[in-house]
Amino acid sequence: MTANSDFADVEVGYDIPALPGTDEADIQTPCLVLDLDALERNIRKMGEYAKAHGMRHRSHGKMHKSVDVQKLQERLGGAVGVCCQKVSEAEVFARGGIKDILVSNEIRDPAKIDRLARLPKRGSRISVCIDDVANVAELSAAAQRHGTSLECLVEIDCGARRCGVSTAEAATGIAKAIVAAPALKFSGIQAYQGAMQHLESYQDRKAELDVAIALVKDVVVALHAAGLKPEIVSGGGTGSYRFEANSGVYNELQCGSYAFMDADYGGITDMHGNRIDKDEWENALFILTSVMSHAKAGQAVCDAGLKVLTLDSGLPVIHGRDDVTYVNASDEHGVIEDPNGVLCINEKLKLVPGHCDPTCNLHDWYVGVRRGKVEVVWPVSARGKAY
Amino acid sequence: MTANSDFADVEVGYDIPALPGTDEADIQTPCLVLDLDALERNIRKMGEYAKAHGMRHRSHGKMHKSVDVQKLQERLGGAVGVCCQKVSEAEVFARGGIKDILVSNEIRDPAKIDRLARLPKRGSRISVCIDDVANVAELSAAAQRHGTSLECLVEIDCGARRCGVSTAEAATGIAKAIVAAPALKFSGIQAYQGAMQHLESYQDRKAELDVAIALVKDVVVALHAAGLKPEIVSGGGTGSYRFEANSGVYNELQCGSYAFMDADYGGITDMHGNRIDKDEWENALFILTSVMSHAKAGQAVCDAGLKVLTLDSGLPVIHGRDDVTYVNASDEHGVIEDPNGVLCINEKLKLVPGHCDPTCNLHDWYVGVRRGKVEVVWPVSARGKAY
Repeated sequence: MTANSDFADVEVGYDIPALPGTDEADIQTPCLVLDLDALERNIRKMGEYAKAHGMRHRSHGKMHKSVDVQKLQERLGGAVGVCCQKVSEAEVFARGGIKDILVSNEIRDPAKIDRLARLPKRGSRISVCIDDVANVAELSAAAQRHGTSLECLVEIDCGARRCGVSTAEAATGIAKAIVAAPALKFSGIQAYQGAMQHLESYQDRKAELDVAIALVKDVVVALHAAGLKPEIVSGGGTGSYRFEANSGVYNELQCGSYAFMDADYGGITDMHGNRIDKDEWENALFILTSVMSHAKAGQAVCDAGLKVLTLDSGLPVIHGRDDVTYVNASDEHGVIEDPNGVLCINEKLKLVPGHCDPTCNLHDWYVGVRRGKVEVVWPVSARGKAY
Repeated sequence: MTANSDFADVEVGYDIPALPGTDEADIQTPCLVLDLDALERNIRKMGEYAKAHGMRHRSHGKMHKSVDVQKLQERLGGAVGVCCQKVSEAEVFARGGIKDILVSNEIRDPAKIDRLARLPKRGSRISVCIDDVANVAELSAAAQRHGTSLECLVEIDCGARRCGVSTAEAATGIAKAIVAAPALKFSGIQAYQGAMQHLESYQDRKAELDVAIALVKDVVVALHAAGLKPEIVSGGGTGSYRFEANSGVYNELQCGSYAFMDADYGGITDMHGNRIDKDEWENALFILTSVMSHAKAGQAVCDAGLKVLTLDSGLPVIHGRDDVTYVNASDEHGVIEDPNGVLCINEKLKLVPGHCDPTCNLHDWYVGVRRGKVEVVWPVSARGKAY
């Protein structure tokens, strides 16, 4: 990446950390690095699990925001499509050629509804969630205006305590309104229990999911009683997918973090009490960082702070090292305890981020590495797409 | 922003929240909004303060990452130039025409040193910090290679406990090496006490700064004794600038957050015990957000979560409202307590972010508003520039 041009107007390589073929040692830091072997193993494993349990897997694109990662999940892991949270993300995935897109969120702003209703013209199946009967007419009018059709899932709040209706009666009422509305199709239920995914203990997570599954069953029974068959019952994350897969009521999983993993998810335990980053999923995502100051004997400073990682789920963990510890982040610096003074200036470290989703959203590029070489450099296609 | 084109391939306005002339009510959310009147008052006020105290003000561009805001600080506030933390930020400011740029950080990676040494060719004065004598030869060789000159400040750790040397002896040793090195100029001292800026009490902040000022004085005396006059003694932030300005030893301030303010800085108090966002600086930066779900009576959900604001310095505050409270953020959602159920779907709220620097770095655009109309839309020019 060293610039050799004599043109004073040209700075080479300042907005991309590496190019395919770059040696891993020459990647510019800080940046996101993907271990492609680990990523592919995670993706294949989830695909095999879903298939063995008769589930569709709709991979959550809000985590990676990458058309390339999504296509890998479809090709190697049999994912049936993507879910995402924003119309602007759906636009990116549709442009990128993803054919089945669920906006697993409510869309209420008229300008955003208009954009959503235009999106099926790109040739993708577009679905969206509803938790308010007033939204049905808004979506229907927009789809009619553009001559398109939108598929609708009624969102159930099954414990996330955020969006979604809380009773079978409310869900059935919205489903009936969808069925009656021109240019909309009632497709089923969105029931993602987000609040329990990160509880450390398997039993605690199971207890929360048992409650969620009971509510979802109630809703399904009520819908059938009203003559409305939910084709899709979708939900499940990296902390819960085994419960939904064995529920007898869900038929679609929405796992995202399993592909990359992070320090927070890594610490939850499976039914045997083992951390899931030991037995179940591999860390495939890292923030590559360099030591850039070591003016004090016991403390090094690296170039990865709050602008390349987020602290909402805790500090990052230095991968493969138990002799040094990342202890504090400021805007552009990470402070590393180095009690034996083993770190050198420009030494590179791999950090496992506390929370992969908002961390990935800070970056423009994924640098995919295999056997010491950069194999691919993928854009974070929907980075910053929040509208 | 509603799209009226019949071209299915064109989605209008999905990557920009507004255009100049848009009514404030039609801005797409979530996005950053600047109150231009408040911003200009803050900038003028700091300029007048610095002038009255015989100080230069070098505004910190790591906060706003915007060429346009920096130019406003130079034009209205008399700022002498910018400081920033990364070579990639310096490249953006140099391309944008900023003529005096201090990288207030150490640069050790050979590729980054090469880029830094090329930057004076753009016609800007380029300065950088050093806390390790080994860095002197690295910088000197690169500047010689490119036929340029770099100005160097020795960084003193005066309490931030991050980068920087801790003794007058170490500082003098580095300064001597700079003076002896071809293509480098010794310009002075970088002494920013970052750790105390956010302490709530004025007296606590003053006590920490008294220690810092004493160390900086020792270094200045030692440099003079060695025949080395520091032309620049630079430091000071929004939580401390009055102490540096009255120290008799600093001659340059580096305030950044004063221009925008945030919830964390707003809560620190002045010498009279008043919050500084009441008496001293106005909130000029907001995250504009919309209510997008209200399925529960006492709780609304808005469209601003962890991907448009950061929690490292606490939750955002809803501006001008004491009837509703932002209580929780997930990736794309903010949960708002609305005990009286007053919020409506699509109602817009202005959030004051907990911490302006990493929040601004999440966004692509500043929407500048005056008297209900969008007047400017400025790019966050160095957004994501972390290399």
